[in-house]
Amino acid sequence: MRRSERNRVDPGLGVLTSRVTSTLQRVLIEALAGDGHSQIGPRHRAVLAYLDTEGSRAIDVARQSGQHKQVVGTLVDELEQLGYVRREPDPSDRRAKLIVPTELGLQQMSKTDAVMAEIERGIAASLGEQQYREFKQSFRRVAQMLSDDQPS
Amino acid sequence: MRRSERNRVDPGLGVLTSRVTSTLQRVLIEALAGDGHSQIGPRHRAVLAYLDTEGSRAIDVARQSGQHKQVVGTLVDELEQLGYVRREPDPSDRRAKLIVPTELGLQQMSKTDAVMAEIERGIAASLGEQQYREFKQSFRRVAQMLSDDQPS
Repeated sequence: MRRSERNRVDPGLGVLTSRVTSTLQRVLIEALAGDGHSQIGPRHRAVLAYLDTEGSRAIDVARQSGQHKQVVGTLVDELEQLGYVRREPDPSDRRAKLIVPTELGLQQMSKTDAVMAEIERGIAASLGEQQYREFKQSFRRVAQMLSDDQPS
Repeated sequence: MRRSERNRVDPGLGVLTSRVTSTLQRVLIEALAGDGHSQIGPRHRAVLAYLDTEGSRAIDVARQSGQHKQVVGTLVDELEQLGYVRREPDPSDRRAKLIVPTELGLQQMSKTDAVMAEIERGIAASLGEQQYREFKQSFRRVAQMLSDDQPS
């Protein structure tokens, strides 16, 4: 069977995840550009996706997003220049820094969360609530398995 | 609930796909670097993933990968310079061009397919064959729904 044919009738995990990732990116770019967030790219959004509104440590963002700490550091520098986050001393450990979203960062985060929730509601309605719940449950296990195999 | 807490206990579709995508990228980078394919990045791999061994048209790669045709064109230029593909006249339409993998391109494609198949076998064994089959089936429907909503 041709690869293109196989990708169509029985796509592998890599093809499925990258196809969904790229569609979601496109939807988010459009939704966020309408709100003036066109300066940030997918790699910046991947950092903001893991920030707590109260602020997070770079190491936690790196661990949760499965990215290297240096990569997260560079993206945080860029997000700081663009006005989405600022670095503040961590009240619980004065030697550590927290990455805290600014008002602009909080706007982006809540808009992203709202767009994603809307997309998921549409999928769940179309697939069936029960089947979507099972899909997400398996997906969580797959993500967990893969990251257990790949220590950062 | 804090976002980081929610991402841990009930991650959304965007978090799950980007987490899995980034882990798979990391595994592939390591596996392919061992075979000397360290010059190509995730965006190049996303093009090679959709190429037929006999060659494919850029428009088909764009449609299947969910990327813009211009983006695919640029990546094909780069892959051509790196020796992974060449452009040839399409025998079925002399005005059109086919992107045909070179020997180096074919090596990369078969190595990638082998690594991904191995990962999927591991997941299926651990999750259970039946459950993994259902997961992939739902995933295909989710990917299809999302791309139906987003015409290129």
